[in-house]
Amino acid sequence: MTPAVATDAGTIVNPDVVLDTPCMVVDADILQRNIDEMQAFANTHGVALRPHIKTHKTPEIARMQIAAGAVGLTCAKLGEAEVMADQAGVKDILMAYPVVGAPKIARLIALMDRTHMTIAVDTEDAARALSDAMVGAGKVLDVYLEVNTGQDRAGARAGEEAIALAKVIAAMPGVNLVGVMTHEGHAGASDPSVIEEKAKGAGAALVATAEGIRAAGIPLRTVSVGSTPSSRFTPTVKGVTEMRPGTYVFNDNTGFRHGVWGPDRCAARIAATVVSRTAADRCILDCGSKALTMDASLSQGGHGYIVGHPNAVVARLSEEHGVVLLSEEDQGDFHVGDRYEVIPNHVCPSVNLTDELIIVRNGEIVDTWRVAARGKVR
Amino acid sequence: MTPAVATDAGTIVNPDVVLDTPCMVVDADILQRNIDEMQAFANTHGVALRPHIKTHKTPEIARMQIAAGAVGLTCAKLGEAEVMADQAGVKDILMAYPVVGAPKIARLIALMDRTHMTIAVDTEDAARALSDAMVGAGKVLDVYLEVNTGQDRAGARAGEEAIALAKVIAAMPGVNLVGVMTHEGHAGASDPSVIEEKAKGAGAALVATAEGIRAAGIPLRTVSVGSTPSSRFTPTVKGVTEMRPGTYVFNDNTGFRHGVWGPDRCAARIAATVVSRTAADRCILDCGSKALTMDASLSQGGHGYIVGHPNAVVARLSEEHGVVLLSEEDQGDFHVGDRYEVIPNHVCPSVNLTDELIIVRNGEIVDTWRVAARGKVR
Repeated sequence: MTPAVATDAGTIVNPDVVLDTPCMVVDADILQRNIDEMQAFANTHGVALRPHIKTHKTPEIARMQIAAGAVGLTCAKLGEAEVMADQAGVKDILMAYPVVGAPKIARLIALMDRTHMTIAVDTEDAARALSDAMVGAGKVLDVYLEVNTGQDRAGARAGEEAIALAKVIAAMPGVNLVGVMTHEGHAGASDPSVIEEKAKGAGAALVATAEGIRAAGIPLRTVSVGSTPSSRFTPTVKGVTEMRPGTYVFNDNTGFRHGVWGPDRCAARIAATVVSRTAADRCILDCGSKALTMDASLSQGGHGYIVGHPNAVVARLSEEHGVVLLSEEDQGDFHVGDRYEVIPNHVCPSVNLTDELIIVRNGEIVDTWRVAARGKVR
Repeated sequence: MTPAVATDAGTIVNPDVVLDTPCMVVDADILQRNIDEMQAFANTHGVALRPHIKTHKTPEIARMQIAAGAVGLTCAKLGEAEVMADQAGVKDILMAYPVVGAPKIARLIALMDRTHMTIAVDTEDAARALSDAMVGAGKVLDVYLEVNTGQDRAGARAGEEAIALAKVIAAMPGVNLVGVMTHEGHAGASDPSVIEEKAKGAGAALVATAEGIRAAGIPLRTVSVGSTPSSRFTPTVKGVTEMRPGTYVFNDNTGFRHGVWGPDRCAARIAATVVSRTAADRCILDCGSKALTMDASLSQGGHGYIVGHPNAVVARLSEEHGVVLLSEEDQGDFHVGDRYEVIPNHVCPSVNLTDELIIVRNGEIVDTWRVAARGKVR
């Protein structure tokens, strides 16, 4: 898990392979290496790995993660958990998101007969509704208390607020408070020079909160941290027992622009074709925001990284147009019909735009996997 | 087509209707009114309306547009055209995008047996490949020359460059140059005070280019302009014969923040539920970037407009979290479990994230339509 040198090892699909573009291609060997190395990191540090499937949304990859040693999976929405239980046979799923509303509670109760579910809670209202429903259904649901360690998104504030809420939830029938979790996304979003400090600070705040809850007589078995950018640091904090990175299976442009990994570790790329070249310094790739998304525009790096062409900038996106500004060194390339591979800035929402992953090994297409949990926002 | 007063007529779904959120709800009456008024505008100005389906991607809505008087449809990708030909029975489709590469040319030739296709071309290379393929297939393909009138995306530069390319294309066998088109997106993206000037300037540049091509003995029947934000202006330029707006069927937050229409004309909304409220001034809606997209973040307006709550700001999005900052007046609302309607900033990519539209009339669900051309990037 030392930062990779930012090497550009070239494209993953052989030039003579015909592709109808844009499409997402995934190198199976890079994928396997990314999975194996994160598992080895978790094992070395004695924490359980519970990967977030939001990045791949694909049963085949979930099975690879479980086979490598993951204790279970993390999902954001019930629809993702339903796919992973029913199509990947996963027996232990954390939904790191509140379950609110009667339609979802009914789906959760049905899903609990097919896999072991744990649900994040961060308000008394949501916990009470789950408690009432579980009592009615004659079930007991494991829950984690989500704790806000600085991201200021969801989660009860670390420390006294979270400890007070934990006591309330622990007293409810039908729910079993078994852990605490945080998503320290604010660390990964920071300047690279302070990721370590912020990540470890978030981990320490979560561990201290867990200790406060345990001191109230509530036995917590799990202290769980999230996010790939901070994954080298937060899980090393003493007292953390579980990590939930997601992006590491594919990696993306944001990470390597920050020096965390190189393009050679980015398993998923958008294969795209030049469809217009009406100026020497500008061309159009057929991947717009419907392939790359508008996420995480990087001021210097544009909307994606064109493999082998570090100075060609994906400067603007429309839905179907990627407007590429060409440096002088690139102006002899990028003819109409030429194909390139673009690494998305944020690979997770880019995967969410495609129905299938084209799996490549040694430059050749070897399989096609359906992104079965794509679009499962409910 | 006078600018609407920005009125907020309230939610479109009755509060007692149960919805599993987030989901996209569409008011059938607002939709019909938007379709009818754009058709009336086109009729008044004597231009043909060829709506772009990128906004709705839905056969039922395509049929409504044709029924109202549209001469045909515009698509961006062959996959969209295939859906509209096969599932909506549309007999005249412009693909306002280059067709490049053998897989797509084969699909185009097959599709030409099912509907009348016109294809945009803007390079000699792409036109030559089409010409060769059509000669081989024994077909003749209608094409429009795409002209760059200032957006600097695709298109041959208006004036001499476009006229010269038109002569080259017109001399090719197998293709029939029948029109010119532009996408004056740069006008709509401008400060509202200069949209009219930029839109009319683009229209005039396109008409002048068409006249230059005709002066070379090439009879063009169509002069086609695009985009909803400029749609009040460009089609009024003398010599323009066709308009291709898309967004008008639904409208969105970007338009009404610019004063072009009000929330009461926004037919499509994301119904979303408060899933977390851990601070007085902040809550989480269950619509993140996987529902609203990261498109067109508006500095003052955030990532969407919460109907009835103009001062509650969707300040940040993660994939599944919409972080809403609550003004003092809103802090008594937004309890966990409460449902709101959010108008997306850019409705087209938001539609592209959903598999179905929930159709509403007088507050009640009356139908569900499949977004059959969702995700058709190829």
